[in-house]
Amino acid sequence: MPFTASPVDQKAIATMRCLAADTVAKSNSGHPGMPMAMSPIAYLLWSRFMTCNPKNSKWANRDRFVLSNGHGCVLQYMILHLLGYKDTPMEELKRFRQLDSKTPGHPEKDHTDGIEVTTGPLGQGFANAVGLAIAQANLAATFNKDGFPIFTNKTYMFTGDGCLQEGVASEAASLAGHLKLGNLIAIYDDNHISIDGDTACSFTEDVEQRFLAYGWHVLHVNDGDKDLEGMYKAIEEAQKVTDKPTLIRLKTTIGFGSLQQGNASTHGAPLKADDIKQLKTKLGFNPDESFVVPEEVYAAFKEIADRGATAEAAWNDLFKSYAEKFPTEHSEVARRIARKLPEGWEKALPTYTPSDAAVASRKLSETVLAKLANAIPELVGGSADLTGSNLTRWGNAVDFQHPSTKLGDYSGRYIRYGVREHAMGAIMNGIDAYGMHIPTAGTFLNFVSYAIGAVRLSALSNHRVIWVATHDSIGLGEDGPTHQPVETAIALRAIPNLMFWRPADGNETSGAYLVAIESANTPSVLALSRQNLPQLEGSSIEKAAKGAYVLVEAENADVTLVATGSEVSIANGAVAKLAEKGIKARLVSMPCTSVFDKQDLAYRKSVLPSGAPIVSVEVYSSLGWSKYSHAHVAIDGRFGASAPAGELYKKFKFTPEDIAAKAERVIAHYKKANAPVLSPIEVEELLA
Amino acid sequence: MPFTASPVDQKAIATMRCLAADTVAKSNSGHPGMPMAMSPIAYLLWSRFMTCNPKNSKWANRDRFVLSNGHGCVLQYMILHLLGYKDTPMEELKRFRQLDSKTPGHPEKDHTDGIEVTTGPLGQGFANAVGLAIAQANLAATFNKDGFPIFTNKTYMFTGDGCLQEGVASEAASLAGHLKLGNLIAIYDDNHISIDGDTACSFTEDVEQRFLAYGWHVLHVNDGDKDLEGMYKAIEEAQKVTDKPTLIRLKTTIGFGSLQQGNASTHGAPLKADDIKQLKTKLGFNPDESFVVPEEVYAAFKEIADRGATAEAAWNDLFKSYAEKFPTEHSEVARRIARKLPEGWEKALPTYTPSDAAVASRKLSETVLAKLANAIPELVGGSADLTGSNLTRWGNAVDFQHPSTKLGDYSGRYIRYGVREHAMGAIMNGIDAYGMHIPTAGTFLNFVSYAIGAVRLSALSNHRVIWVATHDSIGLGEDGPTHQPVETAIALRAIPNLMFWRPADGNETSGAYLVAIESANTPSVLALSRQNLPQLEGSSIEKAAKGAYVLVEAENADVTLVATGSEVSIANGAVAKLAEKGIKARLVSMPCTSVFDKQDLAYRKSVLPSGAPIVSVEVYSSLGWSKYSHAHVAIDGRFGASAPAGELYKKFKFTPEDIAAKAERVIAHYKKANAPVLSPIEVEELLA
Repeated sequence: MPFTASPVDQKAIATMRCLAADTVAKSNSGHPGMPMAMSPIAYLLWSRFMTCNPKNSKWANRDRFVLSNGHGCVLQYMILHLLGYKDTPMEELKRFRQLDSKTPGHPEKDHTDGIEVTTGPLGQGFANAVGLAIAQANLAATFNKDGFPIFTNKTYMFTGDGCLQEGVASEAASLAGHLKLGNLIAIYDDNHISIDGDTACSFTEDVEQRFLAYGWHVLHVNDGDKDLEGMYKAIEEAQKVTDKPTLIRLKTTIGFGSLQQGNASTHGAPLKADDIKQLKTKLGFNPDESFVVPEEVYAAFKEIADRGATAEAAWNDLFKSYAEKFPTEHSEVARRIARKLPEGWEKALPTYTPSDAAVASRKLSETVLAKLANAIPELVGGSADLTGSNLTRWGNAVDFQHPSTKLGDYSGRYIRYGVREHAMGAIMNGIDAYGMHIPTAGTFLNFVSYAIGAVRLSALSNHRVIWVATHDSIGLGEDGPTHQPVETAIALRAIPNLMFWRPADGNETSGAYLVAIESANTPSVLALSRQNLPQLEGSSIEKAAKGAYVLVEAENADVTLVATGSEVSIANGAVAKLAEKGIKARLVSMPCTSVFDKQDLAYRKSVLPSGAPIVSVEVYSSLGWSKYSHAHVAIDGRFGASAPAGELYKKFKFTPEDIAAKAERVIAHYKKANAPVLSPIEVEELLA
Repeated sequence: MPFTASPVDQKAIATMRCLAADTVAKSNSGHPGMPMAMSPIAYLLWSRFMTCNPKNSKWANRDRFVLSNGHGCVLQYMILHLLGYKDTPMEELKRFRQLDSKTPGHPEKDHTDGIEVTTGPLGQGFANAVGLAIAQANLAATFNKDGFPIFTNKTYMFTGDGCLQEGVASEAASLAGHLKLGNLIAIYDDNHISIDGDTACSFTEDVEQRFLAYGWHVLHVNDGDKDLEGMYKAIEEAQKVTDKPTLIRLKTTIGFGSLQQGNASTHGAPLKADDIKQLKTKLGFNPDESFVVPEEVYAAFKEIADRGATAEAAWNDLFKSYAEKFPTEHSEVARRIARKLPEGWEKALPTYTPSDAAVASRKLSETVLAKLANAIPELVGGSADLTGSNLTRWGNAVDFQHPSTKLGDYSGRYIRYGVREHAMGAIMNGIDAYGMHIPTAGTFLNFVSYAIGAVRLSALSNHRVIWVATHDSIGLGEDGPTHQPVETAIALRAIPNLMFWRPADGNETSGAYLVAIESANTPSVLALSRQNLPQLEGSSIEKAAKGAYVLVEAENADVTLVATGSEVSIANGAVAKLAEKGIKARLVSMPCTSVFDKQDLAYRKSVLPSGAPIVSVEVYSSLGWSKYSHAHVAIDGRFGASAPAGELYKKFKFTPEDIAAKAERVIAHYKKANAPVLSPIEVEELLA
């Protein structure tokens, strides 16, 4: 249908432009330029295309919106306010970026009603949107039936020059093109400005041509400041192309309406008071009033909200009929919307006894994933092109691919991410944000580092994503120090709300998956060995789930060893060596430090009691271990090396003999020492 | 000139193919597919184009070669062997991937003579090559004179499908196109295979079109297995285009000659014995002999080596004449080749007294950089599009830009990296690898994380690169938790051979730069505040250079506070608060833990002695602090928040009053406790 903009449309856009300037000015902090420039496209998108119900921000089939250029979040907060979302009354716009407000400096999922994903770190939102689109495509292919289009939503994304320079967005864009995600529409705010000034100084590539190379449908609108009809037609055309994602390059003038419009100065600082006054005068507002929203503008947004409520009601009716016709699928969808796990899923977790074969924990993980893929239909797998090494794919998996490729289809749950670790992390965040999947994916532990920008946002945004991080140490052997993490475990342990698991055997691997899946608001990284590990006497899923537990107890012990992952069985060998000499050693297995930290003090003290020195055993930097142990068998001050794994364990002194010898030295020092709480430096000297 | 391939050329290529198979088979580990497939282009490149002197691998004007697809390093080791580089006799090929060999699993700079940069982690080498090309262009523009082409070398790079999927390579490619680096030639091994199988499963973009979009000169050769003339012409054509980097897409068959050729199975595992036999028979070798190099092949490589030695001799003559005509420039080039710093450079470092104004440490860093940019001509600056926030650009800086842009020229030393943190890190590694610059560059500390894959390689490869990491904590205020690192410091401290500095004032900022610049084989990250910091009584460059020192001493102290960066002055306030109550507190400033760790034990004990409890004060996760302190004022278990910085310091209890109160509690607990060396858990309980 032909598009006409009404006077109310123009008023709404003018209102938003003034409101953006007012909000940043009042807080004296923030980014007015983008919200002022993108008010027209935002208004147009919501008033003509987006379907969402502000009274129920969690409605499953809502259109998703991602503000990848998250510094412009005033734009999003304004829209949420005008639509009547519960967290964003006018007072919260006035408390933009203030302590404990609902309007923080960048949009945060789970902090503000209506925010789908946390953005701000550039490029992340772009990849999140690809994840949201993958989730939708998968659900549509799995659950939609003739006459029952249960999942039809689209994902819209705003993105800027900054995002498009980031590698994570490039990776995600290439994959989105490959996957032919026709349900994804990105609007690129091409304002030719970044913080250093004109993009001519660093970003002169042909973005349209690049996205065509990725296989996207590419459009442009040359006047994003005023050409509402052009914008309307572009989105309309984008919606028609269903086998390619669309990029609409929208030329805008940053800070449109300001005396400084088009200048980088409007990007990240409030406009001057005089400038805001002339803006308001120019747009027909009283220059002496702030935070003004005309009644007719509220009314226009109420129409949008009402349309969304009506849409949800219709969808609810449809979903009821679906229940009658497809009761199994209906209850499955309902369960997944409620984020309830299938009854008894955890019974699928395998258990082991010491007589079972020694197996690499990556292989143990493969067994778990194969069982869980059947027990938990929402589990999604994948790898950054290391499937055969990560062992992330289960036997009957179907690849998530566009059906035209004949390599899989959209109902597939195994994603071939390509060699794109950072996008993989951010896409997993997007898949989780949709709310109906549990994404898992593999790479080498060392290359989780490539994705750490996405991993920290998993933790900040409470995404349940599970990294299958194999080849977790020098135990990977010949590939050498470029591939052997000695620092990654510590980096991950330092991230709040993230679980770093390093299971020692089959029961602990099952335990790690148990907790990872049950923790609906916490990401996990499972560090898994390339080399075989024996099944331990005394391990269990339940014990592992406490983060640490006593594997070998001894009364009046001379020493406690505490080890993780592949070093637990080696430390167990050291216990035997020490016993030969009449030395009593306890052994603690600690698959997850942060989960152990959450146990009550009595339990923690029972695991790591006083009375004997504690020696940690882990093939990583010892940084962080002083929290638990007095002395450390570790790899400090250097990286690993390239050689067969067994030789490396000898070279770095991680044999039962080496560990026993170290323990003996520590015990001797400890007996000599007889001091009150010592400086750690003194402790280090005494126990070295 | 027209190209003809001689029988010796064919023999050399056949030899390399067999040698690649033999090397991987002998070690039973590694990647034969790529070396077998790229033997023709590698032989052609060295025999017809590369200029290098195997007897002097450090000759300044040598052509640089980067194997970005570093898993194929057998190719590089073979070439080094055949050319006679000192570290790679045949025995070392036979010890491929074995303990302490010179032929580790992936190429490592400073480990094997002739290896320019460490590769293997995909995409890194691509960006390193861009850095090498930037360094060359800068030196040529700075030092070449009419008739004296001192710096003329090119950078050649091999890259594969994996690299080109990585965001870091995309970022670097976009920047290289923008910078019009005509001295860079990339050869893309388009073998349609990645580890998961045919690239059809995840990588279907049009790579040529993408690179055209970046502004590259793009060529292709359809038969990289046999069409030597086509390859020759492509490289010849690439050399002619001097205002654009060139990508040559070379279609090859992975594992060419194997029965499994074209199959992913040849990528990362040895060929079967029978397969190698048929390969040798097919190529005219005795199937029962291994590691065979015909005399005429060694002779052909000797010719290449001799040509390189002759080229260096001619260059040395040229450089002598240059000395006569341009003595100043000559001695400058000679100094920089020798990696000697300018005499007395350190006198440029500013010092401060307590009466000087309070200044943000990012601003203090700006002052240092402005002085050092004049004192150290090899210092290179830059920022990932945050110049005005990082304050990385000095007043009279010239941007490194292609002269046609009119925005700077190639003699400029300030690089506009765009919003490309990961590429920035890897490009800095490449600039340092050239050997004649000291790269520095800025972003927010939180976004150093985006580049951690490059940062760990800086450390592994001994690159002196300096990160100007501003906005280092909740002290950045309103931008909120998406931008506030609480875990990044710990992640960086865990990387071996990396210095994480967090200076507290002007003298410490100068001290951090002093050590960072003097440490020729160690990267540094300088964490700098957005907010103002007072100049401390008792700080100095010399003390800061020890990593930690006593800022406030007290006899028979009740407590020692140890703080870093912006928290030192706050802890100083706490010392005063405690004094008001008659409590004697010492204060230690610890700008760099790893440098402190290297001081002798007596010094370390004098800084952190026993006898009183030690309390750390830092607005990050406390992980790692138990190594130094008994109790911690920290941000544990959560991320930051969006609000003005002052309010956040109150919210997170980092005021002098809060710290003093915490210290009082710790002192009280400490006095109650009277035990020998306690379990850290018990210590935690006692001192909580």
